[in-house]
This record gives sequence, C-alpha cells and structure tokens, in this order.
Amino acid sequence: MLVLAAAVGTSTAAPSSALAASAAANEAAYSAVDPFIGTGGEGHTYPGATVPYGMVQLSPDTRIQSRKDGYGWAAGYRHDDSTIVGFSHTHFSGTGHSDLGDLLLMPTTGELKLERGNPDQPLSGYTSRFRHATESAQPGYYAVTLDDSNVRAELTASARVGMHRYTFPAGKPAHVVLDLRTSMYDYPGKILWSRIRVRPDGTITGFRETRGWAPGRQLYFALRFSQPLSGHQLHDTEQDVPYKGFPPPGEKNPEQRAQIEGRQLVAAFDVAPAAGTPLLVKVAISPVSEEGAIANLDAEAPGWDFDGMRAAAKQQWSEALSAVDAQGSEAQRTRFYTALYHTLLGPTLFMDSDGRYRGPDNAVHQAKGWTNYSTFSLWDTYRALHPLATLVQPPQRTNDFVNSLLASRRESAHGVLPVWSFHGLETWCMIGYHAVPVIADAYMKGIRGYDADEALQAMVASANYGPYDGIAQYRELGYVPIDEEGEAASKTLEYAYDDWTIAQMARSMGKSDVAAEFNKRAGNWKHAFDPATGFMRARKRDGSFREPFDPSASGYGSDYTEGNAWQYSWYVPQDVAGLAAAHGGNEKLMARLDAVFEAKVDPSIFAHMEDITGLIGWYAHGNEPSHHVAYLYAHAGQPWRTQARLKQIMDTQYAARPDGLAGNDDLGQMSAWYVFTALGFYPVTPGSNQYIIGRPFLPRATLNLPNGKHFSIVANGLDDAHAYVGSVTLNGRPLDRAYLTHEEILAGGELHFSMQAEPNREWATDATKLPYSMSR
Amino acid sequence: MLVLAAAVGTSTAAPSSALAASAAANEAAYSAVDPFIGTGGEGHTYPGATVPYGMVQLSPDTRIQSRKDGYGWAAGYRHDDSTIVGFSHTHFSGTGHSDLGDLLLMPTTGELKLERGNPDQPLSGYTSRFRHATESAQPGYYAVTLDDSNVRAELTASARVGMHRYTFPAGKPAHVVLDLRTSMYDYPGKILWSRIRVRPDGTITGFRETRGWAPGRQLYFALRFSQPLSGHQLHDTEQDVPYKGFPPPGEKNPEQRAQIEGRQLVAAFDVAPAAGTPLLVKVAISPVSEEGAIANLDAEAPGWDFDGMRAAAKQQWSEALSAVDAQGSEAQRTRFYTALYHTLLGPTLFMDSDGRYRGPDNAVHQAKGWTNYSTFSLWDTYRALHPLATLVQPPQRTNDFVNSLLASRRESAHGVLPVWSFHGLETWCMIGYHAVPVIADAYMKGIRGYDADEALQAMVASANYGPYDGIAQYRELGYVPIDEEGEAASKTLEYAYDDWTIAQMARSMGKSDVAAEFNKRAGNWKHAFDPATGFMRARKRDGSFREPFDPSASGYGSDYTEGNAWQYSWYVPQDVAGLAAAHGGNEKLMARLDAVFEAKVDPSIFAHMEDITGLIGWYAHGNEPSHHVAYLYAHAGQPWRTQARLKQIMDTQYAARPDGLAGNDDLGQMSAWYVFTALGFYPVTPGSNQYIIGRPFLPRATLNLPNGKHFSIVANGLDDAHAYVGSVTLNGRPLDRAYLTHEEILAGGELHFSMQAEPNREWATDATKLPYSMSR
Repeated sequence: MLVLAAAVGTSTAAPSSALAASAAANEAAYSAVDPFIGTGGEGHTYPGATVPYGMVQLSPDTRIQSRKDGYGWAAGYRHDDSTIVGFSHTHFSGTGHSDLGDLLLMPTTGELKLERGNPDQPLSGYTSRFRHATESAQPGYYAVTLDDSNVRAELTASARVGMHRYTFPAGKPAHVVLDLRTSMYDYPGKILWSRIRVRPDGTITGFRETRGWAPGRQLYFALRFSQPLSGHQLHDTEQDVPYKGFPPPGEKNPEQRAQIEGRQLVAAFDVAPAAGTPLLVKVAISPVSEEGAIANLDAEAPGWDFDGMRAAAKQQWSEALSAVDAQGSEAQRTRFYTALYHTLLGPTLFMDSDGRYRGPDNAVHQAKGWTNYSTFSLWDTYRALHPLATLVQPPQRTNDFVNSLLASRRESAHGVLPVWSFHGLETWCMIGYHAVPVIADAYMKGIRGYDADEALQAMVASANYGPYDGIAQYRELGYVPIDEEGEAASKTLEYAYDDWTIAQMARSMGKSDVAAEFNKRAGNWKHAFDPATGFMRARKRDGSFREPFDPSASGYGSDYTEGNAWQYSWYVPQDVAGLAAAHGGNEKLMARLDAVFEAKVDPSIFAHMEDITGLIGWYAHGNEPSHHVAYLYAHAGQPWRTQARLKQIMDTQYAARPDGLAGNDDLGQMSAWYVFTALGFYPVTPGSNQYIIGRPFLPRATLNLPNGKHFSIVANGLDDAHAYVGSVTLNGRPLDRAYLTHEEILAGGELHFSMQAEPNREWATDATKLPYSMSR
Repeated sequence: MLVLAAAVGTSTAAPSSALAASAAANEAAYSAVDPFIGTGGEGHTYPGATVPYGMVQLSPDTRIQSRKDGYGWAAGYRHDDSTIVGFSHTHFSGTGHSDLGDLLLMPTTGELKLERGNPDQPLSGYTSRFRHATESAQPGYYAVTLDDSNVRAELTASARVGMHRYTFPAGKPAHVVLDLRTSMYDYPGKILWSRIRVRPDGTITGFRETRGWAPGRQLYFALRFSQPLSGHQLHDTEQDVPYKGFPPPGEKNPEQRAQIEGRQLVAAFDVAPAAGTPLLVKVAISPVSEEGAIANLDAEAPGWDFDGMRAAAKQQWSEALSAVDAQGSEAQRTRFYTALYHTLLGPTLFMDSDGRYRGPDNAVHQAKGWTNYSTFSLWDTYRALHPLATLVQPPQRTNDFVNSLLASRRESAHGVLPVWSFHGLETWCMIGYHAVPVIADAYMKGIRGYDADEALQAMVASANYGPYDGIAQYRELGYVPIDEEGEAASKTLEYAYDDWTIAQMARSMGKSDVAAEFNKRAGNWKHAFDPATGFMRARKRDGSFREPFDPSASGYGSDYTEGNAWQYSWYVPQDVAGLAAAHGGNEKLMARLDAVFEAKVDPSIFAHMEDITGLIGWYAHGNEPSHHVAYLYAHAGQPWRTQARLKQIMDTQYAARPDGLAGNDDLGQMSAWYVFTALGFYPVTPGSNQYIIGRPFLPRATLNLPNGKHFSIVANGLDDAHAYVGSVTLNGRPLDRAYLTHEEILAGGELHFSMQAEPNREWATDATKLPYSMSR
C-alpha cells in the first residue's frame, strides 16, 4: 500500500521528469549512431535515410557497378569513393550479394545530361563529385553537397516514402534526372520492363521489373515535386530493339510524352525553384501498383514538411534505440548504438498502407491483422538478429515476422518457408531452412501471435521438401551426399540444427511424434563428423568421406558453404557436449578451438571467397559460421577462455569508423553479434531460451524490455586491464553458471559482473550447470 | 382488341411452335457458317473455337513465323499449310498486323520433343502434319487429327476458357507440351518474362509478359487436366543469360520443379490416359492474375463436360446468328452467315468473372455494372462493324463497348480514347480518333447507357490531344502538314469526319458551342482538296501542296495511310455533296469514281503494301478506305451506278471458300460490309442515322431486332440477270430515296425491292431527297 500510495503521490511529477530523462536518453542514443560505420571496407552498409524496418532506404550510390565488379558496392555506397551517381530508394544493409538500388534520382544544373557518365571522368555525365566534409548522416537523415552542380541534397524517409530536399544554386537551369536503368548490380538484360507516366496532376508514377537476385521483381512508384515543373522529357535509350511497335504520341518529342515504356528509361524534369526555396521531391514505393504507391504517398506524406518527416524518423529511431540504455565511452556508445541501429534495418516492411503486398508467387495478397515484412537473410539472421529482436522490440514485431514467413510459405510454389527472400521473392541464396529456428525461437520464448499448428506444419514441410538442396537424400541417408549435392557437410550440419528446433517446438506443443522424428534428425550432425581428422566432412552416397580432403579448402564445389573445415566443424549448437564427446572430451574440443584461433593463416587462401573475412587464425568473424565459436568454451566448462576470445574479437573486428566492420553486416547479424556480446551474453542456440554469458564490454547497460521491465547489466571494475569475469550475481544472488535464460531477462533485474585482471578459472565450471546440450 | 385476343388466344400454342421454328432457323444459321472462309488468301481469320465476343480464341497455329515473314500468319493458321504446331488460346480475326497466339498446347506421343522443329522437316519437333480431310470446324468447335502422332484433337470454348479433348492412340507414351515461347509473331526478346507453376492440386498456372504489338502485355492462365499427371517437366531454354540467380529447387531435375520463371519456358506433362478415355485439358486466361484465371476456370468450367461446353457455345452462336434470318442459296447463306459470324468475333471480352481487367495503364481495374471489352480495331470497325452491332446485338453490347472505351480513356496516360487497343493496351496503330464516331453513332441512335457528358468530354479530349499524330498542327492550321507529320492527307480527312460526329452528338446534347467548333472542323477536308488535280493531297505548313505529286504513290512517307490518291480522295462521308461541288458537280464526281473502278492498274504497284488488295481498278476492296466508295453514286443521285458497282464487288471479292475474302477481315469490318451490302444498305456516314440503299443480294432477309421487332428485306425477282432496283416500298409505301433511317429499321416492317434487268435511272434521283450531306 505504501508503494502504491507513493506511486500515486508522484503520479503527476515523476512521469514527466521520467519522460524528460527518457527523452534525453533517447536523444543521446540517437546521437551516438554513426551511419557511416560499415560503409567502408566490406561492411556494405549504406549511410542513407530510413526508419526502423522501413520499406524505403533512400541513400546515395557512389558508383553503379556491373555484377562482376559489384561486390564492394552491394549497398550502393563506398566510403572511399568521391562521386555520387544519385539517390536511389531501396538498399540492402550489409549483404554480400546485391540487387535493389531502385529509382535513382539526381538533381543537376546547367546542361542536361541523361547518362551517368564515367565517375573517373568528372562532368562526363550527371554523376557529381562530393567530399565527406559536406556529408552529414543520422538515422533517418542524410545530406551532401554535390560539388559539380553545387546542389545541396538532403534526404529523409518515412516507412514507404523517401523525401528529397534539393537546394539549387541560383541562376542556372535546374533538373532532376530519374534513371530507371541503374541498380545494384547492373548487367545487360536486368531490366525486364519499366514505365514512367506523367499524370495530369503532376504526379509521376511508374514501375520497374527486374531480373536480378530475385526473378521478375516488380516495384511501383509515385513521385511528386513541391512545385510545378517547367518541363519534362521521357527517353528510352535502348538500341537495336527488334520491334518497337507503333510510335506513341510524343515519340519525336520527349517533352510531349505522357508515358513511356521500355527497358532503358530515363526521365528529366525541369524545375525553376524560386531563389532560396528548395525543391522537395517525395517518392513512395509500392510492391503492388502505381495506385498503391500514390496511396502510400498520400498516407505518409500528404504535405511538404521535410523537417517534420525528419523529426518523425528521429522520433522512431530514438524510441527504437532506447530499448537499451548503454553507458560507456563515446566510442563504445557509438559502436554499440550504431550496431543496434544496424540490427533494426531488416527485415523490411513490404506492404502497402492498405495491407496489400506481393508474395513469392509474384501475386498480390492482402494481409489482415498483421504486417508483412520481407528481406529475410535467414542464414545470417536466425543466429542472433532475430533473437535480439525478441528482447529489443515488442513481441508484435516478431509475430509479424513469423506471420510474414508463414504467408510466404502459403504463397510459395514449393510450399516452403523463405530461404533468402526480399521484396517478397525467393532467391534460394545460401543454405538451410533457417526460417525454422526463427519461428521455434519465438515460440519457445512465448511469442505466439500466429497459428502454431500451421507454423509447425510449415517448418516440417520445409524440412522435408526433397527437391531443395539434397533434402531428399538427407532424409534417406541422414546426411547430404557430396556426390549428389554441393556443400554437403554444411547442409547436413545446419539441417540437423534446424531439425532440433522443430523437435523443441513440437515437444512444447505436445506433438511427441514430430518431436521424436526431428530429435533423431538433430543427431545427423554425427554423420558429418570424421573421427580420424576431427573435422566435419562430406560423405558420398556410399558412406565414405570424399577424398582427397584438405581442411583449408573452401569455395564452390567444396564440402562447405562459405567456409572450410576449420570454420564449419564446430557447428553443432544443439549439442556442444556431444561434439566434445566426439572429440574425446571438452579439453580436446577446446584444444581444437584454440587451434582455430591460433593458426597461422595466409589470408590470401580466401582471396577467391568474398565473404570469408575478419580472420583470427582460421576464425573468420566476417562470416556467420564462426559467430558462435568463441562461446563454445563456456559449454566446455571454461568460460574464461570464451572471455579471452571475445576480447580478442571485439578489439580487432569492430571499430567506430567507416571500415569498422570486419565483414558484411549481413542485414544486421554482424551487428547483432556485437550488441549481444557487448551486453555480455549471446544466443548460441536459438530455441533453447539460453544466452551464453561471455563478458560485458560496457560498464552498464539496461535493457528496457518490451514488457515494461528493465534488465541491467553492470560490469564493476571493467576496463581494458580487467577483462575477465571474477564473479556474477543475478539480482544480488551469485550466478554460478555461464548462461542466462530468456525468462530471467524478461523478469527484469540486474546482472552484476565483478571484473578482474586474471581469469577466474573456477567460475561456471560446474559440469552439472553447463549450458544446454541435447545429449547432456 | 381482336389482335390482342388473337395473341392471347394463341399464347400457349404459338410460342412453342414459334420457338421450334426459331430453333430450326437458328440451327440452320449455325450450320451455314464455314469458319474456314478467310483462312486462305490474306483473310487472316482463324478456324478455331470461340464464343461471340469471347476472350478465348482457341485455334490451331500452322506455323510460327518471325515478324518479317509473319504477315500471312497473323491469325496463326493458313489453310494452305499442312502442319500444325499446336493450339494456342488467343487470336485476332483478320488483322494485318499481329500478336497473341498465347499458351500453345500440343499433344504428342512417343519420344518427347520440346522444340517445335521445322515444319518443312517432318518429325523434327513436336509440330505435326495434318490433312484438311480430318478437319472439322463449326462456330465454337474445331477438330483435327494430328497425323504424326495420330492424336485426335478437338477444341471448344466458353468466354474465358478453352477446352481441349485429346484422344491418344493406345500403347504409346502420351504428353502435352505447353510452350510459352511461341506467338504471332515471334522475334528475339519478345517474351519479357514468364512463369509456369505446378500447384499441389494439379492446377498449372502461370503468366506471360510480352513486348509485341502491345507493350508489356501480361496474360495469366490456369490449366487443369482431367486426370492426374504421371509426370511433368519444366524447362527454361534460354541460353547466355548474364545472371540466372541462385538455382531454385529442381534446377537439375526439371521433373521436380514446382515453378519456373524465365523468358523461354516450355513444359511437358506426361499422361497415361486409360484406353478409350480421351484426355481433357481446360485452360482459363485472365488479364489480372493467376488467381483470376483459376476463378475464371471454376466459374465457367467446373467440370469435365466437353460436349456440354460445345453445346453451350453452339447455343450462343445460334442465338447470335439468329439476329438475321437470311434466305437464299446454300452458297449465299454460307457467305452471309460466315460474314455475320466474323462480325461477332470482336471486340473481345477482356475481364475476369469478378469484373476485374487491365487497362492501358497496365493496372488492374474493376468494372462495376458494365462489361469490359478490348480489341478495338477502330480504324476498320467504326465504318460498318459497330453500326451493324447496333442492329444485330442488344443495345447493352454497344453500351458495354462505349463504357469500355470511356474506361480506357480514364485510365489512359494520354487522356484519350483508344486508337487500336487489345488486351487493354494501346498500340497506336493506324490513324484517326475513331472511337469518336463509334460513340457518336451509338448516341445518335439512342443507345445511351453511359455518361454522355463524360463521353463527349472524352471525344473532345481525343480530338484535341496535340501530341498525337499532328493534331496540334491540325488544330492550328486546319490540316495536318506533311512536312511535320506523315500520311497527312489521310489524317486531315479522317479527323474532319470524326469531328463532324462530335458536332452531331454535341448538337443533339444541346452543347451548341462544341457543335459549332467541331462543325467548323468537319469542313477541314477542304484543305486537303486540290482543285488542280481533283485529288486529296497533303499540304505543307506553308500552305502549298507537297511536290512532286504522284496519285498512284502509296506507302510510308506518302500523303496517305494504306492507300494512294485514287483511293483516299473520296473520304468525305459527312459531306459528299460538298465533295461533288468541289469537283464541279455530281457528274464530275461520278466520272472520277468511274475512273477509279475502270482504271487499268498493275497490282504490282502495291507489292510493297500488304494491305492494299482486292483491286477493281484503283478500288481496293481489301482495305477500308474504299469501303464506302461504291455507295457515293447514290449520294450523287444515280443509285443505279452504286448497284452496278456493288454487283461487281460482290461477284469478285467474296467467295465461300478459304481464300474467299479479298483482304484482311480486319476484326469483322470486311464481313460487316458484306452483311450490310447483302441486306441492301450500308452506313456510309455513321452518326447520320442513315443507311445508303444499294441493292439486296438475298431474296429475303429478316432482321430480328433487339427491340423484338422484325425488319424484312424482300427482293422480288432477284437473280443474277435482275440486278438492278426497279422500285422500292417500305411497309407497302413507295420509297423514292436511296437511304433508310435507323428509326425506320427499328420500327420494323418490310423493305420491298422489285428487281429488274436494266437500271432504273429515275428511282431515287430527286435532288431534294438525296442522302445526308452536311453542306446540303
């Protein structure tokens, strides 16, 4: 009663001061983000404007590259470039492969140029030089001065709308070029069809259909200018068309054209902004139709309030980032909040304001009561990004993800959950059926706002779809045979883990037959283990391992997916104890792990593999198969060795500078690893509801949980010289195990670390209190 | 009262006997049709199965030709071919240009062949030889035996569904090939994108997007087999794709594929029909989506009743053909009913069963309260086909046509009515804004089930759309200048006529300002008239006629559209009296007309012009600019000369054999000319509500009018030797003018001709009773 009275008594004052404090914290979190981190090196992030999980990612593209040369430009922008081609409206954050870069806009002045030109030859096209000194980027906002035209360009975004503010220099003809020919990456024939239409009310609409990473992808748009145009031109620059049809009105007069269709379209719009009045351009995209894009534009940007849209984006980001109140040095906070920011860039909204979207059948569907998302980079993100979302986002977000996955499966010609999908379409990129652990992790955590029976059916169907990547053989043999399917060792290992998550969920649902079947399949990793070499290897159909065997070999045709035996041989997250037993005990496993980290490796061995980066010995932090490895010492009862490895990784693989990511951010998985590890724990085995405790890297961090509770991680005595965990308490009581449960976090409270200079070789070594392993 | 009593008294008996008589007449009309007429020569009709105005035209394709060689195969079938490639689901009837030929199915046996092969090399592909002896064609039904496989193939159709019945020989592997690579015409890059999906329930769906005559045309389909498949294969035969993406499941095993996307797709389905059980295949098409196609299939063909669908098609045809009860010789009736049949093949339905369709913006729209049609070959069909529909079809049909035109204009980027559109899309083929006279003709005839104000606005907007074909200059100068726009004389003349119809309708609506403006424009034909040569010619912007002038010259770059000065100089249907005056009087005009018909012309002069055929002197009955010419003598007060010319044309330009059409049927315009002329009158000036009386070619014909009344044309004493009109009565009263009004026909009654051997040079010569001319 006293507590209640006190609460009532302060009900008028406390909330407002709490709100003020919260607003200040939010502002601090927002300000800590540096969107340029990851735009150098091979991080492949973009610095442009978007909102959390937004459908529009409006960002500068510094070069348009062919597929052959395009790896470094997967997000359109490279920090070491000095040119900007234009601002396009869709981007991936951190992919190794690419597509998107839709609807490139570029403001220009003077003589109109319709070709982008050669970025190495200034003024050869509409591409402009720029300097980083003129750039500014914050979540939801980007600005730069285009030196060749002296146009100041600012960008902001809402969920489905990108808004541009162009301040033109006075006294020169001003144009905005809309180029539908460019994308990440370019190659001949990529544009299947496209359209630009100038409507009587001045709205420009259109669509583009591309054959890129996703086949036959359609994207519609609607664009408006803040002032009437003084002219326009619509051009089709395709040459040698076998049959162009009959000429439409304006064929000879591009400025008379009301509509143009073709495969190489570019438009130019002439503007005469009044002195001191910037030109605003707002662009909505839609998966469905031009009308859908117009409706999105009307819904999200009815007026011309650039600053208002920017403030709204800031507000959304501030709220989302406030899920964690992280303390530490400015560099620590920049790294942390930028990482958290990067984890909120995917999956991305893929639905019109009326709930319609396009599915993997390329047909239009209606979401009722849920929000459709796409951009599921599941091979990456099931590991830590989706588990992180269960802590830093409301459960509704994960429910929407799951409902999106289930809808996609219903609409799939193959009857399976997405593998790697974006803009609704399946790319079949990477391996595994990793939508399965995303759903199982959600279910096991009690996030169940979907039809669980349908979900389990979808998971089982995906795990049993024979035509996909050797599953028929996997079901027959218990492993994927390398003589019938490439990268077989990786597939066997990842299938076995995914199977284990099905068993977990089925058991929880009381479906013991399904649980038994998939629990058995979860042990299939053993078929890949070669006791003679201590590596996971690929067998042939006859049961023998493929020879010759080179544990350093990677690449297409090898036993592994983006890795080699040194990297893939530890992928048994569901049964690290079993893995240790296979090696002859924990000590032997840990010796092997040490050998991974301490090997002398010439990085040129991976010169042919773009994604294997961030090397520490064989450990490749730049790619996902390594992400759980440092935590495995904790499973083996020696968490101090995990602590040492984490310091090694954090010290070398992340920095608060453009090239501060050791590899592709992979739609936030690299950053999710950082967020978890900085907090002090990591979900090695999604579906177990356990987070393996590593060590904290921040003096204090508080998770402001979706349920309204708060879970703080305090690292007493933490500094660079005190990098080991001495002791741990949870809510004041000693914690003598190296894992936390999801329920413990959700209950709120405080996890307190006492840090020390030397390893504590006793803490959390009790063999009866080791993290989950299915065979333990 | 007696009449009423008599009617009541016979109310139980008469209707049933009337129905029986009607059914017999319907059957006779149906049986008289020979769908092979026009499939030889350059008629470009198809012999396959469709229903009146149906969306599906399921017909054999004898060769797949490139655009260069494709003119003769515009409808897919040429009667002098001896091979069949397969049966595709969409065809134009009688076009000179082409597209369509979507979704080619071919039953085969034995070794599977996925390529169509060379028709000149038997068995080189799935193309089969056939003989006409095995063919049978009736409205809504087609059958043939494929000699190479010994498969009996029968086709029938409903509005949106084609049904195939394949009887395979026993004991051989049986397949059905679905080839999405073929069309009328083929050329590289025509297929922009396509998809085939095998759904778990056995339904095959997909789509194809083509860049043909219409740009970016999407067509969706759903296909079902009457029995489970024993296997399937999905192939993409495209070579040298710059980027194919990641391989989908079944990439190496076409029989495992559930879906395939690409630009060169072919599927094969394996069937094992029980002995004596034919395989049925039903295919629905949709402008909207695969789901739309499935819904169309469910709506129109829920079961497997081939004979029932065939009977329903026959019933629809019998009813439609019963609009005229034509008597005469078997050859006369075959020619007449086949012509009537051909007039009912377009425009074609373009709407799903739920009312959704695709417009010229390629977006999906919903028709509410009307039915959407497309395939508007308006340069041809405004002349006689649309006027005929006002007599032989319920007004609702014309209202639906008008509402379709208006909807298309609302959805048009250009804000104009269709020019030449099909499958919703504008092709900009041919010249003029001839949707305008179609609407005006309907309005003037009291067919007004649309928003007349919107209609007039649409007509004016179309007539004023500057970027189209020199309209800006036409509005400025009163003519289209040849130095700025090709085929300028034709355009000036046709615009002027279209303008006159706007004036007619505006006046009727009480919009005197619009009427005055367009009445003035209707006189613009005078700007094309060159008194020095007596020809219509093209002027330059400076007002002078372009020199040098060759009245026999035609072709691209000439003053005329598909014609020369001899053919185009009589196109003033709104003011024949004015034209005569310009020539110096009726006699001088008629002397010029005689010179047209009696010239000695080497047909090779038109070897470069595919469409100028059916020559009588310069008169080219095979193309539309000539169609009104023979009737102009009647305007000049000498109808007997019209009668003579009509006999000359009817005797030489139509025959009851495959090559019996003198030129492209042009979506029924050639046939509509025949129907009108055989009945005895022709709408020279749609919008005037007058039909010019020529002479009857049938001894008796009765129009069973949509209003329930009957209008009979009786030709007393008619035979080949009695080819002139002696006297005429209308409902027993002498008719001393050479025209009928629409109202006179609709009132029912009898038009009685007394035929004689010699011309009656007195009848209908009264200068005060000549047909309408605006200056009279």
